[in-house]
Amino acid sequence: MKQSQLFTKTRKDVSAEEVSKNAQLLTRAGFIHRELAGVYSYLPLGLRVIEKIKQIIREELNTAGCQEIVMSALQGKEIWEKTERWSDEIVDNWFKTTLKNKTELGLAFTHEEPIANIMKNFVQSYKDLPFFAYQFQTKFRNELRAKSGIMRGREFIMKDLYSFHTTKEAHEEFYDKMKEVYMNIFRRLGLGENTYLTMSSGVPFSKYSYEFQTISDAGEDVILYDEEKRIAINKDDFSDDIFEDFGLKKDELNFKEAPSIEIGDIYSLGTKYSEALDLTYADAEGKGHPVFMGSYGIGVPRVMGTIVEVHHDENGMIWPAAVAPFQVHLISLNQNEKAEQLYKELTKAGVEVLYDDRDTRAGGKFADSDLIGIPLRVVMSKKTLEQDAVEIKQRGIDACDMIPLLSVTRDMIMDRLGL
Amino acid sequence: MKQSQLFTKTRKDVSAEEVSKNAQLLTRAGFIHRELAGVYSYLPLGLRVIEKIKQIIREELNTAGCQEIVMSALQGKEIWEKTERWSDEIVDNWFKTTLKNKTELGLAFTHEEPIANIMKNFVQSYKDLPFFAYQFQTKFRNELRAKSGIMRGREFIMKDLYSFHTTKEAHEEFYDKMKEVYMNIFRRLGLGENTYLTMSSGVPFSKYSYEFQTISDAGEDVILYDEEKRIAINKDDFSDDIFEDFGLKKDELNFKEAPSIEIGDIYSLGTKYSEALDLTYADAEGKGHPVFMGSYGIGVPRVMGTIVEVHHDENGMIWPAAVAPFQVHLISLNQNEKAEQLYKELTKAGVEVLYDDRDTRAGGKFADSDLIGIPLRVVMSKKTLEQDAVEIKQRGIDACDMIPLLSVTRDMIMDRLGL
Repeated sequence: MKQSQLFTKTRKDVSAEEVSKNAQLLTRAGFIHRELAGVYSYLPLGLRVIEKIKQIIREELNTAGCQEIVMSALQGKEIWEKTERWSDEIVDNWFKTTLKNKTELGLAFTHEEPIANIMKNFVQSYKDLPFFAYQFQTKFRNELRAKSGIMRGREFIMKDLYSFHTTKEAHEEFYDKMKEVYMNIFRRLGLGENTYLTMSSGVPFSKYSYEFQTISDAGEDVILYDEEKRIAINKDDFSDDIFEDFGLKKDELNFKEAPSIEIGDIYSLGTKYSEALDLTYADAEGKGHPVFMGSYGIGVPRVMGTIVEVHHDENGMIWPAAVAPFQVHLISLNQNEKAEQLYKELTKAGVEVLYDDRDTRAGGKFADSDLIGIPLRVVMSKKTLEQDAVEIKQRGIDACDMIPLLSVTRDMIMDRLGL
Repeated sequence: MKQSQLFTKTRKDVSAEEVSKNAQLLTRAGFIHRELAGVYSYLPLGLRVIEKIKQIIREELNTAGCQEIVMSALQGKEIWEKTERWSDEIVDNWFKTTLKNKTELGLAFTHEEPIANIMKNFVQSYKDLPFFAYQFQTKFRNELRAKSGIMRGREFIMKDLYSFHTTKEAHEEFYDKMKEVYMNIFRRLGLGENTYLTMSSGVPFSKYSYEFQTISDAGEDVILYDEEKRIAINKDDFSDDIFEDFGLKKDELNFKEAPSIEIGDIYSLGTKYSEALDLTYADAEGKGHPVFMGSYGIGVPRVMGTIVEVHHDENGMIWPAAVAPFQVHLISLNQNEKAEQLYKELTKAGVEVLYDDRDTRAGGKFADSDLIGIPLRVVMSKKTLEQDAVEIKQRGIDACDMIPLLSVTRDMIMDRLGL
């Protein structure tokens, strides 16, 4: 895309209300627009990152045999009353609204109830199980405060996956597999190094659950983590019991403490929802049993915000190649004829190029490029062209080198980006 | 995908509340689930159609230079008060909700106000214009009634595009271009033959607008259309004046009357929103002017429902190849070894295959296949394999033929599908 045609522009300042680093940088770079506290619109560069994150998650889940759907935000109260989650006294983050005929509706903050209810149409016998369905869908949560930028939103896209099995054992096999799938996802998203599978107490219906916690100063949680063994415990749940329950030996672990961001969680739901909503299957003898469920969440903007918190410097963002809005930032310093040719060639070869063809000074272009944070910067100037070359630089690394124009190919670029 | 793994199943009956043909067929075939009247969840087959429709629209809009974004559903009242669209007495289909601190919020039924407000950050000079931004985003509309299945929802995905120009003339050039872009989109969606560019009065801020109306018995509108000249007039707006205003000669037109579904609309907004929200640009002399806006809508489920209304028979749906959930329905009649091999080969070659590997009787498989409506059915049975062949049949056409197994290639399939 030509930068002269991109409608967003960078800016130096953001509103004082925006206290989080992720929202500050994303706003300054023109990725997002703040509608209300905790409510953001995603502009072209921001939406490209969101879609890349979604696509990585989608690929990993599809490979694991999960099926994509999308459920509604508007919800009637009947199914939520069955699980006692309709009352505002029990669930304190509902947004509610009303139909013309005064019927009260809720805006879903999660989807265990609706998906269990849907599946009653499709589950009769043990032969119909297992299966796994997920969605990327807008969640609404009436948070009291929203100070973490896109990391804790009142409206945000969540990936929520639900699993359906005949037995606890069958569920647990899938649950264990999802730990690996999640770690693969976070590795591909550029968060693998800083992210720990974290033991946590969780929810009323299972004694423990797992979270995926990414070490960051912006985190609202604290974990105790063993860097080598790649496991962690949420500090809130740290006790002698937890070691025993998870079969860990305290003296074999070397814990450090750090603030962290919860970027995913996976829960064993047991039969809580299937019993309440009467989601049952008949076994080979025709006897009925409630379905064993699990739920597995990733907040997409939470992940995007975490990537920014983990990967930035004083000049701006440093996107991991797999989620960058573009792969190459091609900057022309008054050499638009040759640059346009390179832009067209690379685009045709399938490289995602943001081409800065604007008639502005070099300093401004470089500052914008650092702020936006595209991983590979290619500069074409009079000086480089005298040597039939371009200057190439990786965002976040000081060194840059001159390479012959002819060697700027898709393969060379993907190689440098590790893609 | 293997049909044995698809969690949805077909069914014979739907709730008596579901009076529209589109919702009846889509529900029976397992494409959608009704949450509430006018509120649907999209299951794997349904979501695949939604995504294909979106992708066709996206490709045509990107080619026309439009930039994709996504705005929030939650809206504060300030910007809507500026255009006098906050009051429930003026706009009667708001869903409203409240924050913990009692601040009233709305769930956007459209996005002229928020987008004009966002663009204030990016428009200063005439050099910043024109540009065009669109989104696929969930709209909430508090409709009094919802009896048309997925064609008139209380919650639905809409493509809304907004254009920003310096002058009326520049706007009109783009507006005219969008008429063609829209017709291209509807042609690719399999609705070209039945769809007419339709003159209509429309909105308070411009005397006329254009709608795209598809002839169908399920339509809530009525148009007068000239089949040969491919133009129509909304019957509500039929008058001698309209001929004069559009420069048409009444006696040169040969009008028929038919019920129709509005599947798209394009509006000249003038400076109504930019003036109210102070979205202005400076001309070359530094003088300020309000930006000239347009808006261009397509309801994605409305289009999907219309395709079903237009393309079905007594046995089920008949998807146009470009939007079908899968391209080929491969049916194995107890020949799963050879069928699996063909399934793998075709999938590897990039053909989208739903492979019916279920252990059920042939009659049920054929009935399901007709209901689901995948355009090309390939049957492998003992009988066909005796001739090293498969039976191939196009949905909606009675004839079928035997073709050699070796000739079932991607090219042959795409050729038959016209893709």
